[in-house]
Amino acid sequence: MSDGPTIYCAEPLQVYLDDAAANKPAPGGGSVSACAGALGAALVSMVCNLTRGREKFAGVEQQIVSLVGESEAARGRLEQLLQEDTTAYNGVITAYKMPKETAEEQAARSQAVQDGLIIAADVPLEICRVAVEVCRLAKVAAGLGNPQAVTDAGIGAILGEAAVVGAALNVRINLGSIKDEAYVTRAAAEIDEILTEAAALRAETLEITLAKL
Amino acid sequence: MSDGPTIYCAEPLQVYLDDAAANKPAPGGGSVSACAGALGAALVSMVCNLTRGREKFAGVEQQIVSLVGESEAARGRLEQLLQEDTTAYNGVITAYKMPKETAEEQAARSQAVQDGLIIAADVPLEICRVAVEVCRLAKVAAGLGNPQAVTDAGIGAILGEAAVVGAALNVRINLGSIKDEAYVTRAAAEIDEILTEAAALRAETLEITLAKL
Repeated sequence: MSDGPTIYCAEPLQVYLDDAAANKPAPGGGSVSACAGALGAALVSMVCNLTRGREKFAGVEQQIVSLVGESEAARGRLEQLLQEDTTAYNGVITAYKMPKETAEEQAARSQAVQDGLIIAADVPLEICRVAVEVCRLAKVAAGLGNPQAVTDAGIGAILGEAAVVGAALNVRINLGSIKDEAYVTRAAAEIDEILTEAAALRAETLEITLAKL
Repeated sequence: MSDGPTIYCAEPLQVYLDDAAANKPAPGGGSVSACAGALGAALVSMVCNLTRGREKFAGVEQQIVSLVGESEAARGRLEQLLQEDTTAYNGVITAYKMPKETAEEQAARSQAVQDGLIIAADVPLEICRVAVEVCRLAKVAAGLGNPQAVTDAGIGAILGEAAVVGAALNVRINLGSIKDEAYVTRAAAEIDEILTEAAALRAETLEITLAKL
């Protein structure tokens, strides 16, 4: 058995689900949120792939080809983040184990903890950014794509929004321990903005979807 | 290469994501919704597994042991439904290919299409039922579980609700073609009730989670 990290996309889906349920912190809610976002991006790609190359939808062919490029890029990035989040907190754990006898050691440990916390917040923040992009793409797919697959575009937006809200919780829990006030203010404002946009996009995409059922 | 159906939980996560994105109808939004629900159930189990057997949480040990039994049962059922949904529409497709020359053939074909549509609606309806149960369990986990894992309970509720809303879209699209009015009325009323409960549980669980950050 190898000592290297488990590369979850290469493992059976059952292993990812079992490890998420297990008595260990990773993969946790951040990684699972990225996975939900990747599933949403996959559905946007599916809508495009069930639309492109069909004479009936020739009028939107160029837009659909461009859209699937963007949804596949978002999916690839979320697949990476699904993995990155499983190790994002390692730096914090390592830092907490540093010696803290002398004032110098205490200062070095405190700085390492803070650096680790910023990485642990940056990963779910990036998940939020890419997942709201999935919502944007899902809304376009619901409007332009093959109407027989419109529920898949709707579900793409639902999962994109779920990924945003889930990952935002993990940003927030880390912000609570970060002392760099400028970072905290900037990150909190950014997630609020993304949460608002994602909620609106979910509602708009569901409206488009329901109108086509 | 085998001609049997792909058993997605046994395949690499990457295969499930790639097949969801591909130019074929399955796995589509229904299966992916079940997967999101299973991921949410896994997080509820993780919260329980990070709580049970710890002296600090001895007061809730019995409730947590019972809760993880329920979340693992819900996860197992959603893992089955993730698979079942990939073939749920096959009966409809097969029925549409039946001969329709004579009046007798037309009647038999029409009956087979209707029977197939009811199966295709029943699978996502069952996903809705199990996914709202994930939301109920996530709310309990957020209240009783290890507060260090509270965001995972919150994300469990978010994914449970996303699975409900996603699968409900696939119930609705099939109801549109089902002629059995009693079935349509009953199923539509049930998904409305489940959607309302899931939305409330997501909001309540997020409130509990944010209060503990």
